[in-house]
Amino acid sequence: MKKILILLGPNLNMVGVREKGIYGEESADSIQNQIISCAEKNSFEAEIFQSNHEGDLIDKIHSAKDNNFCGVVINAGALTHYSYALRDAIACVKIPFIEVHMSNIHAREEFRHTSVIAPVCAGQIAGFGKLSYFLAINALKDLI
Amino acid sequence: MKKILILLGPNLNMVGVREKGIYGEESADSIQNQIISCAEKNSFEAEIFQSNHEGDLIDKIHSAKDNNFCGVVINAGALTHYSYALRDAIACVKIPFIEVHMSNIHAREEFRHTSVIAPVCAGQIAGFGKLSYFLAINALKDLI
Amino acid sequence: MKKILILLGPNLNMVGVREKGIYGEESADSIQNQIISCAEKNSFEAEIFQSNHEGDLIDKIHSAKDNNFCGVVINAGALTHYSYALRDAIACVKIPFIEVHMSNIHAREEFRHTSVIAPVCAGQIAGFGKLSYFLAINALKDLI
Amino acid sequence: MKKILILLGPNLNMVGVREKGIYGEESADSIQNQIISCAEKNSFEAEIFQSNHEGDLIDKIHSAKDNNFCGVVINAGALTHYSYALRDAIACVKIPFIEVHMSNIHAREEFRHTSVIAPVCAGQIAGFGKLSYFLAINALKDLI
Amino acid sequence: MKKILILLGPNLNMVGVREKGIYGEESADSIQNQIISCAEKNSFEAEIFQSNHEGDLIDKIHSAKDNNFCGVVINAGALTHYSYALRDAIACVKIPFIEVHMSNIHAREEFRHTSVIAPVCAGQIAGFGKLSYFLAINALKDLI
Amino acid sequence: MKKILILLGPNLNMVGVREKGIYGEESADSIQNQIISCAEKNSFEAEIFQSNHEGDLIDKIHSAKDNNFCGVVINAGALTHYSYALRDAIACVKIPFIEVHMSNIHAREEFRHTSVIAPVCAGQIAGFGKLSYFLAINALKDLI
Amino acid sequence: MKKILILLGPNLNMVGVREKGIYGEESADSIQNQIISCAEKNSFEAEIFQSNHEGDLIDKIHSAKDNNFCGVVINAGALTHYSYALRDAIACVKIPFIEVHMSNIHAREEFRHTSVIAPVCAGQIAGFGKLSYFLAINALKDLI
Amino acid sequence: MKKILILLGPNLNMVGVREKGIYGEESADSIQNQIISCAEKNSFEAEIFQSNHEGDLIDKIHSAKDNNFCGVVINAGALTHYSYALRDAIACVKIPFIEVHMSNIHAREEFRHTSVIAPVCAGQIAGFGKLSYFLAINALKDLI
Amino acid sequence: MKKILILLGPNLNMVGVREKGIYGEESADSIQNQIISCAEKNSFEAEIFQSNHEGDLIDKIHSAKDNNFCGVVINAGALTHYSYALRDAIACVKIPFIEVHMSNIHAREEFRHTSVIAPVCAGQIAGFGKLSYFLAINALKDLI
Amino acid sequence: MKKILILLGPNLNMVGVREKGIYGEESADSIQNQIISCAEKNSFEAEIFQSNHEGDLIDKIHSAKDNNFCGVVINAGALTHYSYALRDAIACVKIPFIEVHMSNIHAREEFRHTSVIAPVCAGQIAGFGKLSYFLAINALKDLI
Amino acid sequence: MKKILILLGPNLNMVGVREKGIYGEESADSIQNQIISCAEKNSFEAEIFQSNHEGDLIDKIHSAKDNNFCGVVINAGALTHYSYALRDAIACVKIPFIEVHMSNIHAREEFRHTSVIAPVCAGQIAGFGKLSYFLAINALKDLI
Amino acid sequence: MKKILILLGPNLNMVGVREKGIYGEESADSIQNQIISCAEKNSFEAEIFQSNHEGDLIDKIHSAKDNNFCGVVINAGALTHYSYALRDAIACVKIPFIEVHMSNIHAREEFRHTSVIAPVCAGQIAGFGKLSYFLAINALKDLI
Repeated sequence: MKKILILLGPNLNMVGVREKGIYGEESADSIQNQIISCAEKNSFEAEIFQSNHEGDLIDKIHSAKDNNFCGVVINAGALTHYSYALRDAIACVKIPFIEVHMSNIHAREEFRHTSVIAPVCAGQIAGFGKLSYFLAINALKDLI
Repeated sequence: MKKILILLGPNLNMVGVREKGIYGEESADSIQNQIISCAEKNSFEAEIFQSNHEGDLIDKIHSAKDNNFCGVVINAGALTHYSYALRDAIACVKIPFIEVHMSNIHAREEFRHTSVIAPVCAGQIAGFGKLSYFLAINALKDLI
Repeated sequence: MKKILILLGPNLNMVGVREKGIYGEESADSIQNQIISCAEKNSFEAEIFQSNHEGDLIDKIHSAKDNNFCGVVINAGALTHYSYALRDAIACVKIPFIEVHMSNIHAREEFRHTSVIAPVCAGQIAGFGKLSYFLAINALKDLI
Repeated sequence: MKKILILLGPNLNMVGVREKGIYGEESADSIQNQIISCAEKNSFEAEIFQSNHEGDLIDKIHSAKDNNFCGVVINAGALTHYSYALRDAIACVKIPFIEVHMSNIHAREEFRHTSVIAPVCAGQIAGFGKLSYFLAINALKDLI
Repeated sequence: MKKILILLGPNLNMVGVREKGIYGEESADSIQNQIISCAEKNSFEAEIFQSNHEGDLIDKIHSAKDNNFCGVVINAGALTHYSYALRDAIACVKIPFIEVHMSNIHAREEFRHTSVIAPVCAGQIAGFGKLSYFLAINALKDLI
Repeated sequence: MKKILILLGPNLNMVGVREKGIYGEESADSIQNQIISCAEKNSFEAEIFQSNHEGDLIDKIHSAKDNNFCGVVINAGALTHYSYALRDAIACVKIPFIEVHMSNIHAREEFRHTSVIAPVCAGQIAGFGKLSYFLAINALKDLI
Repeated sequence: MKKILILLGPNLNMVGVREKGIYGEESADSIQNQIISCAEKNSFEAEIFQSNHEGDLIDKIHSAKDNNFCGVVINAGALTHYSYALRDAIACVKIPFIEVHMSNIHAREEFRHTSVIAPVCAGQIAGFGKLSYFLAINALKDLI
Repeated sequence: MKKILILLGPNLNMVGVREKGIYGEESADSIQNQIISCAEKNSFEAEIFQSNHEGDLIDKIHSAKDNNFCGVVINAGALTHYSYALRDAIACVKIPFIEVHMSNIHAREEFRHTSVIAPVCAGQIAGFGKLSYFLAINALKDLI
Repeated sequence: MKKILILLGPNLNMVGVREKGIYGEESADSIQNQIISCAEKNSFEAEIFQSNHEGDLIDKIHSAKDNNFCGVVINAGALTHYSYALRDAIACVKIPFIEVHMSNIHAREEFRHTSVIAPVCAGQIAGFGKLSYFLAINALKDLI
Repeated sequence: MKKILILLGPNLNMVGVREKGIYGEESADSIQNQIISCAEKNSFEAEIFQSNHEGDLIDKIHSAKDNNFCGVVINAGALTHYSYALRDAIACVKIPFIEVHMSNIHAREEFRHTSVIAPVCAGQIAGFGKLSYFLAINALKDLI
Repeated sequence: MKKILILLGPNLNMVGVREKGIYGEESADSIQNQIISCAEKNSFEAEIFQSNHEGDLIDKIHSAKDNNFCGVVINAGALTHYSYALRDAIACVKIPFIEVHMSNIHAREEFRHTSVIAPVCAGQIAGFGKLSYFLAINALKDLI
Repeated sequence: MKKILILLGPNLNMVGVREKGIYGEESADSIQNQIISCAEKNSFEAEIFQSNHEGDLIDKIHSAKDNNFCGVVINAGALTHYSYALRDAIACVKIPFIEVHMSNIHAREEFRHTSVIAPVCAGQIAGFGKLSYFLAINALKDLI
């Protein structure tokens, strides 16, 4: 089975606890289990990596080649809007990245309308809660 | 079967002819057939409506209730970036809209980074070619 | 009786259905009847023309002279905020236009604060629901 | 008879003297008399208060409750464009305010296109000379 | 003879009636006749298509190939400044477009200084009244 | 006992009446009494001066030296955001000013995020209701 | 002798006390006496009016005609940068105004670079300390 | 005793060493001891956590519930101005945060005037050196 | 024969050498000869003046009257985008100027989209290589 | 007698010919003679240097020391608004510069409101025609 | 030998792998060895520290004094453009920093044109690949 | 020996005289001699060309080929920030340019942060006084 990486940025460990009106009440653990199942159904072995540290996310991206990841689903959390370092990390590696957001960032505060990582990702899926991840895994099949 | 509307804006009749580097070489007809098949697989009866006229798109949206559409997948083409009239039309009806783009609009010219219809849509999917439509139909199941 | 034109832009056929918190629950038909009555009380014969098509609105404005309209009350809907073509159409004809909005556009989203047709209209009335039209008809008496 | 307040800001005492091309040649006194008559015809007892002092206008607004005013027609003059203090004063009291301008501020210099008091007023009427006041009194009947 | 299309946008049917200080007093018909003559002198068969509807203009552009047009002279009127849909339509077809304006748009209001269709046109001619069209036909000879 | 001045700008006399969701329900009088008590506990004799007039506030600031004030707690209300005259007045005198706001101005409308008097004040305290004043009096002890 | 008005805005009573590095150490009184002498040498009877109240300055300007002032030298202090009400007051009267600043406002903070009253004044003199007033009186002779 | 967290961001370990003109000469250790004493006087048990790592600060905030912190005093250092990830972390937890700065950020470089965490904090205290922390602890009593 | 001036700004002597992808491979000399021939065919005696010095271009424009030039074709090169001095020079003389560019400046870098000389020129022709000059000479016949 | 330099930038040789509505009908020569006379009356020996070349103006400024100029009156024409090189030249020498404009630049086009040389000049005089120069010479006496 | 620190930010471990068109094909290790050799030739003992973690870079900077570094060559990678925390860290220590970039950041995307650390560095060297580091080491000799 | 050109723009002849705090006290001559020596040590024959005239600098650049220059070190002085003509001149020739500044332009006034010539230069070195030139010569060896 091909390996894919599900990369989760700051505060995504708090889903289910955090602003439930926006992110829903289901726990991060429960969603992550479903992501792995969904990957399996799509014949992928998924590794989920969550960190609140920009540097850890970058390190993980750099290791993609050594870990044989052939695609990445990334929800960079708020780093999406200012982390040019993350953007450059994505540009370093040669596998496809799909940008995911649980909420519709284009319908929220002004600062969330801009994604600095979008120009180095294949596409963006936003606004469907946990389904956003499943759709991205689905899309990844097409790109790998 | 529930009915859904696939709404296509200006120039989307030209896919396959138009800027192939961006939109691919597959014809609009071929893609539209696959969209209908995909909808059927998801137990939806899909109607596809394409127009280069902002007014026609608005008229069609207004008719959604009378036509028993319970969800809309919309690729508004370039109207996405300035048609506040389309935005207001979407806000008029009470069914979910999913915004779709074949190309990753956030990775192209500056003016394509802003969607004036995003604030009234449930979510956005961009960058996956024809697959963007299939993913949206998939997502619609969750919303209806 | 002098003839006046009441020109209604995109989505104004949906009043009574559309966002009731903003536009009220009274139907478009009911309001349009009252507009005609109000015009009559002010000794005007009013024709109401609604379209969701920018082009139709422009065509109608061009026909003003042939139709002997001596004044226009215009609620251009969202076209107010970007249709420079509509603005130029108004500048083509030599009769007074009064810009009307049912909601107080200056108290809503940022993009609604700018009217690109204002510089070619005699005045603006915004925020009084259907009464906005009646006041405009009233004002038109002064300008014709 | 219900009492209403007609609040006039800086330089509105100079109408008839001031820039006649914009504000007309009729004297401030003459217009104010007609405003009072118009109010009476609409069954209102109108008090007109003009001041060139932002502070006086704010004090007057604060006194609205003690003076039993049940609505206010306000032409704040140039304070419209920068007096956030006036805006906050309006927000302090619970009666409807209608913003009025004799000239069409949206067709003049850029700085006059923005009204900082609009977000706390019920509606705006601009561009009809003294008629703007009469229309506002008319509109106030609907709101009280 | 090679066929060329002269595409005229909103309000260009009103030339001769519309703002004569800017567009002159000669009628639209008279100018269009001269455009056809000029084309003939340059060995072109010209078709003139005017519409106030963005959608009609786009439809016409899409039909260019089927109609064997080998070049287009386009005066998009005010759509020039905001119709990204028109821009995308031009990008769909592979024949040269020359952007024309009767007035010098760069010497008028700020909003007329930007052309959103310029990046997909071969060149721009502005400010010479009806002569602008003749010059463009002349230029087209060089590009076809 | 050292004398301090508590300077209150426009609309701060309306606290308790004004927008209670933001400013609370306690009356201006009650709060002012507590401010004086708090000052006394901190060994200050406090004078409270409220005015809706920018000019009065400036006059009062100029008189600081003659009145032996050795520090000022200032809540300039909405003047905070545009009164450069007030700013210059503060720069005229050589005693410390502490800027106070009852609401968290940085969490409200965009225009409230900028304080034009901040660059000439020692510090800013915002968001704690009446407590903001008490904290400022406390801080003043450190500066005098 | 012709009468002229020297109009001084907020904080100009504090010259000599206020920021001496910018405004010098000479007292306001001393400077004002020299202004009157200078006017006399130029055959003008000068009245000096200083106020920290925008409203008072506007009232004074309105009274210019009744007081037979045939020219005004105005240093509006910080009101220069935001008081559109003052600007409109100047536009009300038909005598020449000369804008004066003791400091070179164009070499100080960004906000001091813009004068909202400049468009309605004959000219501007800035940066020469008290001499700015004398030069303005000199210039006024040319304009009256 | 209730537990509170004092959260210190990048470079705040360098106080006493760092830019002494702005932050004073007292060592970080000395100030931190006084913060703990001050907390105790206010019946709080304070834990101080300083890190130069955005991720560590976010992790610490997430742990607030498990650690029974009932309030947080946060000086995020320069992260204040761009760390939307920190902002989202604060929004995750349901206890009050008070934003603190030793220097008056509104009187320094332009980029320090904006706090991206302010909209999710209860209030802001800036400009009083170490006293800023003590005042915040004081304020926290009111909010818990 | 009437005399016209062809004024060429900085770097236009380098055509044929300079960025050939944009300006073509034909030498400046060859193009200039053709410009003179074209002028002759249009019954004009053309003088070509090229300089890389803003001052020389201005001097030349000032001399237009003494040299009996009755029209000017100007390609100001990059000075187009910032030389307000050149703009003022054009405004000094009373003969028509036609602005010319070999490349379509509106389709290149952002800074090339603005022409500071456009407001004082009769019209603009851009994007047709050397043909741009010929068209301008043609247009000049209409204006002289 | 002390020597002063009157430095005139682009197009100022055209006064009397150029835009007479703005600059008057008096010839450049006539005005320059009066400037010299005025200087003499103020006990200065004045040299007038006009050039349309930025470089010549800079060279002249650099020579100020060798030429024993002890002050400069500079009207830089349109270079005022963009020539940072001129600004740096002024900053090179240690004698006072007074910035002069015949027209009131703050009441004209937007681009004329900014002077890039103002921050290195002692003061600015604008709007008094040739009198602007005389006033500047007068002011220079105070500065030397 | 004096010790210097070579500080490398996010993604600089990926040189040789990362975007080879921009950063070249030589490996990070190879370049780092040459940096150390170059330092030695310049009589410096160089320590190279690379991290993808903003916090680690700040920690390292803080330790500069304890480690006896007397100068720093810093390539902060993408942090250059938004890490105000890094800027403040540099401002904490009293040794010279030289900002280095392998690519010419001023010739790339807009966001790379701004360096938030530049104001606290001695100078900047950009665009010379690995040579940028060698030049910086060379420059450091002059500053220590 | 290969020939290189050292191109110095406006005011660089005044180094040693000009703003010594920024540019140092060493004379332009002395520095230029050292530049030539440095070039020789690097096996280059250097010609230094300084001019305050934009046009002269452009002419010199154009002559690069005829003069067999194989590289250019350019310090364009303040022209760096607005001379698009200089930028185009550099783009005309096919030899490498290195942009040099003696001061750290990124740490000075806002307008100095932007270099319009950077996009056509190989790299930029700023902030090291005369050493900036030596480093550039060093770098040039790598590029030729």
